[in-house]
This record gives sequence, structure tokens and C-alpha cells, in this order.
Amino acid sequence: MRIVLDAMGSDGAPAVDVEGGVRAARRFGQEVVLVGREDLIRSEMSKYSADGLPSSVVNATEVIEMAEHPSRAVRNKPDSSMVVGMKLVRDAEADAFVSMGNSGGVLASALVSSGRVGRIKGVSRPAISTVLPTVSGRCFLLDIGANADCKPEWLAQFAVMGAVYAQRVMGVDNPRVGLLSNGEEDTKGSQMVQEAHALLRGLGLNFVGNVEGKDITHGRADVIVTDGFVGNVALKTAEGVGSMMMSLIKSEIKSRPLAVLGGLLAKPAFRAAAKRLDFREYGGAPLLGVNGTVIIGHGRSDARAVENAVGLAIESTKHDLIEAIRQSVHDAAAALATASA
Amino acid sequence: MRIVLDAMGSDGAPAVDVEGGVRAARRFGQEVVLVGREDLIRSEMSKYSADGLPSSVVNATEVIEMAEHPSRAVRNKPDSSMVVGMKLVRDAEADAFVSMGNSGGVLASALVSSGRVGRIKGVSRPAISTVLPTVSGRCFLLDIGANADCKPEWLAQFAVMGAVYAQRVMGVDNPRVGLLSNGEEDTKGSQMVQEAHALLRGLGLNFVGNVEGKDITHGRADVIVTDGFVGNVALKTAEGVGSMMMSLIKSEIKSRPLAVLGGLLAKPAFRAAAKRLDFREYGGAPLLGVNGTVIIGHGRSDARAVENAVGLAIESTKHDLIEAIRQSVHDAAAALATASA
Repeated sequence: MRIVLDAMGSDGAPAVDVEGGVRAARRFGQEVVLVGREDLIRSEMSKYSADGLPSSVVNATEVIEMAEHPSRAVRNKPDSSMVVGMKLVRDAEADAFVSMGNSGGVLASALVSSGRVGRIKGVSRPAISTVLPTVSGRCFLLDIGANADCKPEWLAQFAVMGAVYAQRVMGVDNPRVGLLSNGEEDTKGSQMVQEAHALLRGLGLNFVGNVEGKDITHGRADVIVTDGFVGNVALKTAEGVGSMMMSLIKSEIKSRPLAVLGGLLAKPAFRAAAKRLDFREYGGAPLLGVNGTVIIGHGRSDARAVENAVGLAIESTKHDLIEAIRQSVHDAAAALATASA
Repeated sequence: MRIVLDAMGSDGAPAVDVEGGVRAARRFGQEVVLVGREDLIRSEMSKYSADGLPSSVVNATEVIEMAEHPSRAVRNKPDSSMVVGMKLVRDAEADAFVSMGNSGGVLASALVSSGRVGRIKGVSRPAISTVLPTVSGRCFLLDIGANADCKPEWLAQFAVMGAVYAQRVMGVDNPRVGLLSNGEEDTKGSQMVQEAHALLRGLGLNFVGNVEGKDITHGRADVIVTDGFVGNVALKTAEGVGSMMMSLIKSEIKSRPLAVLGGLLAKPAFRAAAKRLDFREYGGAPLLGVNGTVIIGHGRSDARAVENAVGLAIESTKHDLIEAIRQSVHDAAAALATASA
């Protein structure tokens, strides 16, 4: 198996990405293809005893930055690590693509002519996903930004694709699928969400109905479906609340000498709690609906997160994710056609 | 001044609401009119030395529960505390209405014929609001659930009304108004949000542009505007993350003896942090756009929160909130008409 890793993706690129790639090659024994500025990559690799590991380097001279407008950047930078790396998957020279970079850029790279892996047959719109911690485990949330305006049918496909991923790669048996809404009752929601609700009922999924914002972290569903606008707001709201709480607690502890001592004694507990809240444990999440295995990680990833993201790409490939999605999307279309006939 | 307090609103009603009402009458010296089941209210009042305080009781035999469908409940329960209380404001027998109950029920009570205070002239849709803690202060967020599907013009009015409230009642000078979106760039957002963005530019507000979910808690704006679907999801996501983090930290501390000791030493710091995160400090937030001063508090309110909510109603009345909104909405309509001419 060959996994392409965008070496220029993370905020700490290429150091973090290369270290993570080397660790992944060592841990999983599959070939990691590092794509990006070859001189920089080789210089980073020389810091590790990477000789003999299954890894290779493909040069790409351009870098798509985090703040760049995705489709414009991808058009203007055909020799970027994203476009060059995606092309390797398209041309079947590699099995999967992994990046900690600009998620819109990864999506655009997958669809632009120079890198095109394109969409899986039958998929209307690809979706960007994420994995969030819950009180009892994890929640798979999509779309978090690829599609600001969605049609009900797209949300139904997100649900199908999300359920396949949760089952095959996350190992969740018969995943509970929820539809994010402004209330649990079936009648709650925007017009679009209410129409999506009706479609989701007819798909044969383990559909638990509408779920609310608080249910994302309360573990009421394994997969939660929403449009890219709402998903993005929910994700970033969660991140904002998390960082505000941590900084408030820290500042209140610092201002009290006894509390400082208490904070030191409680540190292992804080660390354990922080670890359970840490996105780096998951490594990344897939770009679903494109015709290739693509994993996107957080820009703030460290080497361990990169290593885990490569691990997810390997798992996805092993479990034939793309073919499973193609089949499920096909079956869902048939189910909806029967239901409306 | 006479402030109507729904004595049957909170999860702990009528005990909590009556205690809060008595405290408010004592603290503010304005008449608090307790509406609800008179026998229960008088029995609660007898627990406090309420004699001589400016308070009165109006009987209402029915109660709208938290889980009831708002407009159906309001139609079927004309003798509910909400409808009866709202009618007192409509008939100018009181200046403001306060409830810790079903927020949709309060909205419906204000609009249904039996309680109708109606909308302020020129307002398309009332909005339910909330106040959230930030790293540096507070953020006023609306709509959080009255309107799942919004038109751009409605969001523009929410911005105008929110800015008036922040300035007059919250005491924020020249409040910064943000539009919740899936990215900071002007071009980000759903179609509706992009159109609202263009309108907001022309209103003469201190418009800081698009803000993201994380900016709700990061203090980037004093007023954040969104539709009732997204606002509800964002608010409940924030509540969910907050409670998950608290319970994770507690459970990790409990499982380690030394950390338990540390937790005890750090307790005052935790308390102080929790207080800064506590909605009860604010008491409630207004239902904006209806033709009467209406404050809605959290169902989980304690007596102090009820007391603070009555205080907000008094402040709003003192500062002539309704007339200020009427004038600002009128001016905004003129500004938009000029801009589009």
C-alpha cells in the first residue's frame, strides 16, 4: 500500500508532517510518499533514522497556505503538494492522500482537472467531516464546510456515507445517525432539514431522528449530519467554548496561591481530561464522496496526529471504503426511488 | 413601575420564581405582579417576610409546560400564566413581562389574540436572544430559536434591535455587531448570510463583518446575529461542550486521590471560573421586536437569576427600549431604501 502525505500541510510543516510520516512508515510498515519541497523534506528526514523505512519523496515546489482561497489557490498552484499528491492517487500510483492543510484546498485539489480524482459515481456533493469527543466516546460530524447551502438529498447522502465510514473504519456496529436540528421533535428544523428528515427515514439507516447541539457531545448519535454552514459553526463554537473554559480555569487558579498548589496536584487529572478532549488522538477525518481515500487532519496537528491520520488512511483503504460508499449510495438512491414511487 | 413575573415558569416553579420575585421587589422597590396559581403563590410568599413589599398576585389556573408545543399550548390554555400575564402588558396594566418558562410559549403568548402585545411597527419577525459569557465579558446572541428559516432583511433587523439593547440596557458603547458565518471573509456564508452581510454594511452600525463560531466566546463582537436554527445549534453546542468538560474533569479528578486533594485546594478557583460561565448572573435576555418589554430567563434559573431577570425588565423599561427599537428599525428601513435607490 502507498499513502501520499502532504508534507507541507500543517501549521508546523514540513517538520511536523515529515516526523509524523516517518513514524507512520515505521509503525504501519506501509509506504509513505512525502510530497512537497524535496530539499526541505530530505533535510527533515535526515533527523530520523529513516533509512530502510518504506518511504519516498515526490517533489512539489508550491504550497497552498491555510488562509488562501481554496479553488483559486489550487488553480494558480498546479505544482503544489496538494495537487501533485492528489494526482498520484488519481493515476493509481498511490492508494490514499493525507493532508493537515487547508481543507477547502484538499477538496478543490480533488475536483480540479489537474488533480482530479473526482466524485464517486452517484454522489452529488463531497462532504468534509470531523471526529469530536463525547462523554462516552466519539461523534462523527459532517459536513463541516464543503457546502454552505445544501439540498435535502445531499444531507441524505452525507448520512449514508457517514454511516459507512463509522461502521467500516471507526468500527461502530450499526451506527446511530442523527440529523442536527433546533429541537428533537420531528417537526423541528428549517424547511430543508425537515425535508431531509423525511428522506433519512426511508434509507434503512439506524436513524435516531433529530438531535440538538448538546447531543453532539452527549453521545446520542455516532454520526451527525448537517449542512456545511451549520456544521462549521457548531465545530468552531465547540472549539471556542473549550479553549475559553480552559483559559478561565487556568487564570482563576493562577490568581490563588493555594489553588496553584491544588492545580499541580490535580495536573494528572487535567492531563487525562485534556487527552480525552484532544483531536490529535483521532488524527483526522475523511473527505467523503470523492473517488479516492482522502484524510484531512487539523492544522495544529503534531507528529502523533499526522501518524494517526496516516493510520486512518491505511484502515480506510484496507476496508475498501470507496467501493463501500459507491454501493451504499447506489442502494440509497434505489430506496428513495422506491419510496417516492 | 409594574413588572409581571410568570410565577409558573422555571423548572423549580413556583418556589424559585416566587422567591426571586420577592427578592426583586425588595431590591428594586418596583411592584412585582406574580401571575399563576394564586394558592400556590401565596403559600410560597408566606415563607418570606413579604408584607409591605410592592407585590401583588394575579390568578391564572393553567400552566404551559417546558416540553409543550408553544402555539398549540397557548391556544389551548388561555388562562395560563403566560397568556394572562402578557395581557396585563397589552392592556397597559403593567410595564414588562418576565418568564423563566418555554421561550416559544412566551413568543406565542405575545402574538396570540388573547394575549397580543403584537409586534413593534416595522418589525418583520421578533427574535429570541441570549447572553453568553466570553473570555473578556459578554456576547448578545440572536435569534436563538424563533425563526428557523430567515430572510436577509430579518437578520438586518435583528442586528438593529440587538445593537439598541446592547447599548441601552447592557451599557455597551457603540456595540460591535458581527454576522455569524462559516468563515471571516466577506464572501463566506450561505446565500442568505451573504445577502444579509450586504444589508448590514448599509445600516450605519458598528458592523465588524462575519464572525465564526469560536468568536462567540472569544469576544470579537458584542452582538452576534444569526437565524434561529443556527443560533439554537450554536447555543446548545456551547452548553453541551461546557457540561461535558466539567464532567470529564470531575471524573478524572475523582479517580485520583492526590487530585482529589488538589481539586479541594483549587475549589475557589473553580467556583470563580464557574461563576463567570454562569448564565444566572445575567438573569435572562429579551424577546426583541414585540411591542412590550419581555424578558425570558433559563428554565434552570434559581431565585437570584429570577431576581436579575426582573432587574433587566426594569432597566429595559427605564431606558424606553421599545420606543428606541421602533425608532431604530424605522431609521434602518429608510437607510436601506436609500441604499437600494
